[in-house]
Amino acid sequence: MSAVAQAFLPAIVGRQECLPHVLVTQSKGKIMTDKYAVVGKRVTRPDAVSRVTGEAVYAEDVYLPGMLYGALLRSPHPHARILRIDTAKAEKLAGVKAVITARSDIHPSAGSVFARDEVLYSGQKVAAVAAVDKYIAQQAVNLIEVEYEILPAVFDVMESIKMDAPVIHESRHPDMNNICSHSRKERGDIEQGFSQADIIVENRFDVAIAHQSYLEPHACVADVDSAGKLTVWTTTQGQFGVRSGLANLLKMPVSDVRVVGTQVGGGFGGKNALLLEPTAAMLAMATECPVKLVMSRQDELVDARPGPGCVVNIRTGALKDGTLVALQAEVFFDTGAFPGATIGFFDRTRGLYRIPHFQTDLYSVYTNKMPPGAYRAPGAPEITFAFESQMDIMANELGLDPIDFRLFNAVDEGDLTIDGKPYPPIALKESLMKAKAYVSSLEKKTGIGIACGKWMNGVGTSGVTMILNEDGTLNMISGAIDLTGLNTSMAQMAAEELGLPLESVKVITPDTDTAPPAAVSGGSRSTYGMGLAILEAAKDLRQQLIEFAAEILGTSPERLELAEGYIRAKNKTEMRVHIAELARRAMWSNRGPITARGSASAEAWLANAHVFITQVAEITVDEDTGRVDIHKISSFQDVGFAINPMSVEGQIQGGISQGLGWGIMEGLIFDNGIVLNDSILDYKIPTAMDVPELVPVILEVPSVDGPYGLKGAGEPSMVATPAVLANAIYNAVGVRIKEIPITQRKILIGLRLRK
Amino acid sequence: MSAVAQAFLPAIVGRQECLPHVLVTQSKGKIMTDKYAVVGKRVTRPDAVSRVTGEAVYAEDVYLPGMLYGALLRSPHPHARILRIDTAKAEKLAGVKAVITARSDIHPSAGSVFARDEVLYSGQKVAAVAAVDKYIAQQAVNLIEVEYEILPAVFDVMESIKMDAPVIHESRHPDMNNICSHSRKERGDIEQGFSQADIIVENRFDVAIAHQSYLEPHACVADVDSAGKLTVWTTTQGQFGVRSGLANLLKMPVSDVRVVGTQVGGGFGGKNALLLEPTAAMLAMATECPVKLVMSRQDELVDARPGPGCVVNIRTGALKDGTLVALQAEVFFDTGAFPGATIGFFDRTRGLYRIPHFQTDLYSVYTNKMPPGAYRAPGAPEITFAFESQMDIMANELGLDPIDFRLFNAVDEGDLTIDGKPYPPIALKESLMKAKAYVSSLEKKTGIGIACGKWMNGVGTSGVTMILNEDGTLNMISGAIDLTGLNTSMAQMAAEELGLPLESVKVITPDTDTAPPAAVSGGSRSTYGMGLAILEAAKDLRQQLIEFAAEILGTSPERLELAEGYIRAKNKTEMRVHIAELARRAMWSNRGPITARGSASAEAWLANAHVFITQVAEITVDEDTGRVDIHKISSFQDVGFAINPMSVEGQIQGGISQGLGWGIMEGLIFDNGIVLNDSILDYKIPTAMDVPELVPVILEVPSVDGPYGLKGAGEPSMVATPAVLANAIYNAVGVRIKEIPITQRKILIGLRLRK
Repeated sequence: MSAVAQAFLPAIVGRQECLPHVLVTQSKGKIMTDKYAVVGKRVTRPDAVSRVTGEAVYAEDVYLPGMLYGALLRSPHPHARILRIDTAKAEKLAGVKAVITARSDIHPSAGSVFARDEVLYSGQKVAAVAAVDKYIAQQAVNLIEVEYEILPAVFDVMESIKMDAPVIHESRHPDMNNICSHSRKERGDIEQGFSQADIIVENRFDVAIAHQSYLEPHACVADVDSAGKLTVWTTTQGQFGVRSGLANLLKMPVSDVRVVGTQVGGGFGGKNALLLEPTAAMLAMATECPVKLVMSRQDELVDARPGPGCVVNIRTGALKDGTLVALQAEVFFDTGAFPGATIGFFDRTRGLYRIPHFQTDLYSVYTNKMPPGAYRAPGAPEITFAFESQMDIMANELGLDPIDFRLFNAVDEGDLTIDGKPYPPIALKESLMKAKAYVSSLEKKTGIGIACGKWMNGVGTSGVTMILNEDGTLNMISGAIDLTGLNTSMAQMAAEELGLPLESVKVITPDTDTAPPAAVSGGSRSTYGMGLAILEAAKDLRQQLIEFAAEILGTSPERLELAEGYIRAKNKTEMRVHIAELARRAMWSNRGPITARGSASAEAWLANAHVFITQVAEITVDEDTGRVDIHKISSFQDVGFAINPMSVEGQIQGGISQGLGWGIMEGLIFDNGIVLNDSILDYKIPTAMDVPELVPVILEVPSVDGPYGLKGAGEPSMVATPAVLANAIYNAVGVRIKEIPITQRKILIGLRLRK
Repeated sequence: MSAVAQAFLPAIVGRQECLPHVLVTQSKGKIMTDKYAVVGKRVTRPDAVSRVTGEAVYAEDVYLPGMLYGALLRSPHPHARILRIDTAKAEKLAGVKAVITARSDIHPSAGSVFARDEVLYSGQKVAAVAAVDKYIAQQAVNLIEVEYEILPAVFDVMESIKMDAPVIHESRHPDMNNICSHSRKERGDIEQGFSQADIIVENRFDVAIAHQSYLEPHACVADVDSAGKLTVWTTTQGQFGVRSGLANLLKMPVSDVRVVGTQVGGGFGGKNALLLEPTAAMLAMATECPVKLVMSRQDELVDARPGPGCVVNIRTGALKDGTLVALQAEVFFDTGAFPGATIGFFDRTRGLYRIPHFQTDLYSVYTNKMPPGAYRAPGAPEITFAFESQMDIMANELGLDPIDFRLFNAVDEGDLTIDGKPYPPIALKESLMKAKAYVSSLEKKTGIGIACGKWMNGVGTSGVTMILNEDGTLNMISGAIDLTGLNTSMAQMAAEELGLPLESVKVITPDTDTAPPAAVSGGSRSTYGMGLAILEAAKDLRQQLIEFAAEILGTSPERLELAEGYIRAKNKTEMRVHIAELARRAMWSNRGPITARGSASAEAWLANAHVFITQVAEITVDEDTGRVDIHKISSFQDVGFAINPMSVEGQIQGGISQGLGWGIMEGLIFDNGIVLNDSILDYKIPTAMDVPELVPVILEVPSVDGPYGLKGAGEPSMVATPAVLANAIYNAVGVRIKEIPITQRKILIGLRLRK
């Protein structure tokens, strides 16, 4: 065990089965783990076996009798006028059951699914076919004749905002072209701030578009029954979002749309929104048959909803002693041909340092590329790459240690957020101190990178129903999609609240017809929001149990409590009745079955739960080839409270892996709007061979309102990783690359240009 | 329109779309129909199209990847010792995956599913096979070698109770053999009663075993997943009963058993209990594959759970003026080789007439035949056939009109039930009066039969969950199986309670994992019990809507009410907010989604809801051939309140049809314990050609506790039909047949023996 690990030892008392390298510390709150029986324990997912054996049913595994297969015709051009579409030959092909375009009369909304008069990006849907097999469907797609008039296009955000660039949509800015949205946050007087500064640093950073690279491409099956009810089986992070989206688009009552969220082979934000479902639904309506649509990896790379690229111009000023005084930044996110980029910028991503004068502008800019979507902590890895590279550059200019420089400026409880509210207890300084202690313990002093990051989890609409079975086991019904162990954590919370053994709680995830509504499993919201609903439902269930027990025991509810599986007298007399007995009797008395409900949501989506993280990367760079060898990435991350530490560790390790990919390997490469690396051979993602030792160090500063003080843990781990690699590379070889992915080629060029 | 129909006209004001021959009368309660918007209206079932087009999924339609097919080896002997079972040849057959017997170690409960040391009836399960197709499975069954030692058997209840008959199980009576159960009800002094009587009549009546003859035979598929969770798709009237049964038998936690109740093609009591499910589950456990078991029509006729036969000895005494003074009866139900017959005898079936002195004994008796189950108003058609034939014989002996005789003795509000409680308002006299008015209007005066009947509905454990969608549509989750329009009536009640249009309410019936528990759809309980749960859930939902609206409107909940789709001020100011708006805002506020729960049950299963019925049959008998032509059967039935009159009429017509079958056509024929008529060609049931005009006349005397005053309407219609046909035949040709079915042959013999 390392010295630093030993230093943490006192803090891990009470946590069981910690892996040697996993250090759980409890800070700024009391040690909570001892008081819980089920939460805070390392628990294996009950669905683990079904996931690894092929038993789990994914959307592509859905086969229905008489099912047809769909295929899509996509635009080959990034910008063109559609002069003519002739589907006659396709329709005549034997086995073809429907061909639909924006002009089809199958549904008035077809025009919003397919390009009607113009295509705005290469890969945009122009037509869809349903046929008896996928080969015929593809053959029919090839038979559709489209005549295009090619129009001028623009692909770079900095080009697109120029007033003489081709107009994609009306701009929302008087002086810049193609602005989709703009927002600003400021404090103090930016001019005054810079006038105080001893040094001012200004840089531009560039981020490529990165695909989420979930293992399972998008797939869905749609079917319409004789009563007109639409059912869609789909791989989605949010089945209720798909339901709302389809009901809105197709102008159907919500109760006539049923979405069955199948097992999801990874989403990471890329399965938050509608993609194939409206097309599948329209094909099913047109053919009166079930229709399956599955995206190939090529489809994924040319027309999914990847993480957006951006350009960040940043200027910072500081005093000689390291005090930050001013920051000005403009961020131009590439939203492609349609509004789509989900970006957490201000309070969610920023606000790590006390800066009296700042002004930050966030633009999203149209280009003739596919619209992006959300990617794990949307916007944060991109912006943090820029801002935390900038902090490193500043520290260097000031001759300060990068950790000390950050510690010196770091916010703490009571400091103001970007939105001007005082912070509750937070863990930024603690994570920096832990990182510092760790770095001091290292023998090798070069190739060490440091970066911090911030994130806030969502809450979202959350509902659960509890059904107490007659033997005292509990079925908890949830509509939230379990991407990464949510159901296990939910079972832990329910078991904890009801004094049940964990194995007595089964979380059931039925379709949208049956489950209480729940928001998308995204924004690190799930355990937080669903946990709040569980606390409420458990309270409802407890109260009913106590009231029914009071009836049976002939006492008043106030005298009773739930403990150790019984409803018992608070005064510890022997008067008690087991929950299973109550459940059984309720069934056969006038009472009826015992069920309970819980709901939670948040007006503002976001919880008041500020997650801070510090990462340390240890690398070497081969100066001859530019090749980066990452030896280890350590992540000191506040999670508020780890309901299932094993699951949280997995989240942290997964996030770092994805951040590593975007940081040094991944990015779509375009040639005049056409994706060149449109296969998994050419679009490189980290494999198991590329991922080094990843050390998640869990910090626990309880959130103010979260269940058990937890904070969302899914996204933050990815936030700092591109930056920490950029900083480590600089620390290793003195080459500062301001563009991610920091490919071997870029480093090699940097090494050659190095003076 | 007939004179009698015109006489009812004032009573049908306010009911819409009545068929010309359907007369809805409202009596002894206020006219309720005007005050309701949705309940009481004739509504088409939304699932009607899916049922008639083949879209609905029945258990046999379930196909799973890698599914195996099961087959059963049944005993050919009614009673034998199993000396040896050799499954070696069967196991060696290519394609066979498992052979299980009572001695298999696959599960300790195998011994309670298969005969171990003795077979007790012909058709009893001895072994089961799972194979890759059903032909191989059957071939393997044929290869199982069983050596039997044949033992003496007994088939007739009156033989079986003799002390020297073969013992099937230990008797629960000191002086009679093979008694499975015995219960007695009495009042007054039976000897004194008969000593007062001017006339005494004594008869024996015999009833054959009748199969429920649902269109869809039993079928199920079982599967066990990698986590050990058992899922069973099955055709059942009660999926939660199947779940409890399987969990008990297999000693599994309830939450590890999931039952998916598929569409049911008729049950009528025959799908109340476990039948194939344990075998399918064990085969699935043995093979680790899904296994399908489907019964043939022959399987159905030799080993399903039919309505039991019985022998009724009845002795009644009356004064000359027609006053009944004494009744003594012994009923011997045939429970076959195992306890099974579900029989409603005392308060449920009896208690139509004031009789100061009575003593009735109910026995169930073991024989070497298949165990019976429940059949629509279990026990009631059998007993009522005897008792109402007896009433007709008494009236004849006394020289009284059979209607007047019944009217004279009929119970009314305040008279005592068999259990000695005072009746609430009831409809027996009213139904007799209506029948009398109808009979008086007839021109033809022979071939007219009259019979009355009584039934009481169950309540049973009942739960519903309501989920308010964001557009104000409602999903109501129910675990009760919709056999005959239950979901439609449930939607009507929910819409009524919440002021929603009917089409905004969708009833969803998920599996036992997800639905709140609900008892079997049987005992005429469903609309009653589920209705009570709906009223409670609607109250819960209303209260939440009102509280949330109060928050939004800045007022107190007490000032608000739900009306016309809005939560609005009681004082009729303009302050109001639409339910859909509340639903939408709840999702995105701190409130979270709006869901509600409701539960109901009854300690004693039965509701205090006494349904009375009078039927009138009009027939002719061909004296040369004994052939009965039924022209019309009219049924004057109290339903308390018809939530969906169209559905209630269908129930009444269906019940009469089945009563007609048992009355003159249906019955298993045994030869030494072997079913001779084991095909649908030989076991005759009424076809559409055999069913005459059936006129349901709905009476509405509200129940005391039922939702909207309704009473269970499913079973009572069948109760009086065998008796009314026996009485009509006597009225037509003076032949009194005391054995059902009253076949043509029996009538012909009767005609020949007629003096």
